Amino acid sequence: MEKRFAGVLRQSIDEVLDGQRTGRFDIKKLDKTEKTYLGTKVEIVTRSAFGLEYGQAMDYEIAGQEVDAKFTSERTWTIPKEAMGHICLVMSADDHRGRFEVGLIRIAEGVLRPGYNQDKKRGISAQGRRAVHWLVPDGALPTNVLLSLRDEDRAAIFRASNGYRGSGNGGQLRINELFRRVAFHRTPSGPGGGCTVDRTTTLTVASQQDSPKRVRDARLPQHLGREGIVILGHQGRHPVLARALGLPVPDKGSWVAARLAFATEGDTDPVVQLDGHRYVLARAGDASAPAPTEY
Amino acid sequence: MEKRFAGVLRQSIDEVLDGQRTGRFDIKKLDKTEKTYLGTKVEIVTRSAFGLEYGQAMDYEIAGQEVDAKFTSERTWTIPKEAMGHICLVMSADDHRGRFEVGLIRIAEGVLRPGYNQDKKRGISAQGRRAVHWLVPDGALPTNVLLSLRDEDRAAIFRASNGYRGSGNGGQLRINELFRRVAFHRTPSGPGGGCTVDRTTTLTVASQQDSPKRVRDARLPQHLGREGIVILGHQGRHPVLARALGLPVPDKGSWVAARLAFATEGDTDPVVQLDGHRYVLARAGDASAPAPTEY
Repeated sequence: MEKRFAGVLRQSIDEVLDGQRTGRFDIKKLDKTEKTYLGTKVEIVTRSAFGLEYGQAMDYEIAGQEVDAKFTSERTWTIPKEAMGHICLVMSADDHRGRFEVGLIRIAEGVLRPGYNQDKKRGISAQGRRAVHWLVPDGALPTNVLLSLRDEDRAAIFRASNGYRGSGNGGQLRINELFRRVAFHRTPSGPGGGCTVDRTTTLTVASQQDSPKRVRDARLPQHLGREGIVILGHQGRHPVLARALGLPVPDKGSWVAARLAFATEGDTDPVVQLDGHRYVLARAGDASAPAPTEY
Repeated sequence: MEKRFAGVLRQSIDEVLDGQRTGRFDIKKLDKTEKTYLGTKVEIVTRSAFGLEYGQAMDYEIAGQEVDAKFTSERTWTIPKEAMGHICLVMSADDHRGRFEVGLIRIAEGVLRPGYNQDKKRGISAQGRRAVHWLVPDGALPTNVLLSLRDEDRAAIFRASNGYRGSGNGGQLRINELFRRVAFHRTPSGPGGGCTVDRTTTLTVASQQDSPKRVRDARLPQHLGREGIVILGHQGRHPVLARALGLPVPDKGSWVAARLAFATEGDTDPVVQLDGHRYVLARAGDASAPAPTEY
């Protein structure tokens, strides 16, 4: 249940952000029309994900009950008067904190705030919140990688193509910088300093049609290869290598990057054999060994 | 210019219809929130398609001019007072007629209707329309296949899965019926009775993730194969076969279906050799020959 709703909300937010075309990754950058539409998108994606039927008066009919979908990225839900007496599927998401909640509540006078907003809708009161039957009281939203980065890393990624004069929009330079910034390396407590990168993040950073090609090309010697950075996906030997290095194993449509160094004599860290060389995760200060060209 | 704007408008409309999840293909079925958002989507897709910069006050800055994007699927554009003195890129689309128009107009008192709507915006007047500098005065929108079908054909497609009790949502049965209804055949004046099917149409009809698989499976003997119907895409020998039969040649992500019959002795119609048999387009009344299993 948590995983399915998490997917619904992540997908809805990402579609309305439309990062591939707009470069946006922060729900706060949506304009008013888009924020309103996000509620409609959540309603549509929820119906599709759970195979729900259309209701007569409300969005869904579930087990003979009329149910209305209500989504908010703000503090509370606004309830139109038509929902009075009906059940609402209330959903909220905080992409900055990476949390969401989903619950059911039957709308009655006692759960609403007294005041109306300009659209003649009423908020759910603090008392009303306590009446919610939570399906997911505190769910984990799939990470919004760009929001989760430090300001300096994010700025470096989008700045990477400043002054670029070649063909295209410089997306390759931004993708390179993204993987450079999120590459795992050796820390005293094990692999660290990196994170898994999802497809949406690469679309937003590259802002072009062929983002997967930009990721593949980032592996080349002239891009990240000479810095010893490898990018592992879900195919071929990549999951095995990720596991061997102690990294998260990428699902389909996601990647982990890692900075490698040549293993030393008697290295106690996990070693992988690539292209005839023995590699380990690089320490922060290590000289960079050229990454293998085939892996 | 016409082709690029046509693509922008088709893409924007299709994304907001979200046929894969909703089964919708008619812009008139959008709710108010979605219709408003469609204007935002057109603005975003236009910016991306033409590589336009953001303006300070308006949506775009083009050649030092502030330009606002205005889209309507109704009769006229509604202009906010902030646009006064600025250029508007006015776009409209009529998906039922398959036409669209794009033009530029500088907003001034003389091009606006006197009255305000409830959002304090004003329409462009008949006189204002004459002041538009048309970039595309009467463009052809890529066909919305489902809108273009006869009512009975469309109804048959969506009815095809009624009562279906198997796994999935019966999308295979609807896809079969779609290609059955749009299959080209022999008419006295040449190949006819069919049309090219685009990817969006298959997504909307199948209403599931793996629509391309539904199209591939529709070719199997147990689906359309036994009725002599072949489905040609853009790959392998398919374009050659389509051309040989006098059919439209499908682009990437589109298909043409054709109903075949065995060629008769001295057949004067174009003949294709498939799986050791000689085939021609079937006439409306012809007995169906089993389609080749490999093509």
